[in-house]
Amino acid sequence: MRSAGLSRSALYDGQVCSIARALEVVGDRWTLLIIRDVVLGHSRFDEFLDSLGVASNVLTDRLNRLVTEGVLERVPYNERPERFEYRLTKKGRELGLVLLALMQWGDRHLSDEPPRIARRRSDRSRVSVRLVAKDGSVVGPEDLELVPGPGAGKAARGH
Amino acid sequence: MRSAGLSRSALYDGQVCSIARALEVVGDRWTLLIIRDVVLGHSRFDEFLDSLGVASNVLTDRLNRLVTEGVLERVPYNERPERFEYRLTKKGRELGLVLLALMQWGDRHLSDEPPRIARRRSDRSRVSVRLVAKDGSVVGPEDLELVPGPGAGKAARGH
Repeated sequence: MRSAGLSRSALYDGQVCSIARALEVVGDRWTLLIIRDVVLGHSRFDEFLDSLGVASNVLTDRLNRLVTEGVLERVPYNERPERFEYRLTKKGRELGLVLLALMQWGDRHLSDEPPRIARRRSDRSRVSVRLVAKDGSVVGPEDLELVPGPGAGKAARGH
Repeated sequence: MRSAGLSRSALYDGQVCSIARALEVVGDRWTLLIIRDVVLGHSRFDEFLDSLGVASNVLTDRLNRLVTEGVLERVPYNERPERFEYRLTKKGRELGLVLLALMQWGDRHLSDEPPRIARRRSDRSRVSVRLVAKDGSVVGPEDLELVPGPGAGKAARGH
């Protein structure tokens, strides 16, 4: 993943970075665990509370943040008393790949045997998270390079 | 990613989960930003300090944790005074896919234009993070299911 052919300043601007921006939204253990819970079928405040063992004020804060950021939406399921459940938006569902990449890494390095298996529904074959080129072929980390894109700062593009 | 065909208890055990285990190691914004910095070519304490704007005691704590967990290794580069640099281990390099998945999500949802582009070195074609089946074909999220694996708790496997 290292890009040895580029000057450091060309590649590296810590402020203009989609990883940093993503972590401003989800860069907190509870936040990613809440999203995992929703992916796995939980939707209600008390379910998250039971599942995560998190303090309720912290949970409230993280859920509100995720709704504000458009990762979760809050849908009423009861009128009196008023009760809500939380569902993933499209933006939230697309975090599934981040969770699967974390799961794959955890399976490989932190678990003796995988607690869960990701597979293709149609034929039950195992699926994994990989780098794929436009032609559909899998790309190994040694053949990957990172280069400044159109959203890089002016200084970076000038190099 | 939801697995509607399974009872919740069969699928869901919040304690036995490679995502939760992974987040115990890297589930902190600074930690993932340090790893990003190393991937992008930084290796020294002062570089991280400049790049991240993190307090030095926090940085020391996170670096020590990452060395203990085997994600980074500490390599001396100067004897007097004794100075170290930090390099990714194999375990650490394999987190690259998590960072790229975060970058891809951030590019799509949080950045107008991508600050960096991931491409294949050999032909400069864009690469992306995808789910891939054993036969090499890309799997869409609608065709993914999660089922309990051999590392699931007994209760889960019994269902």
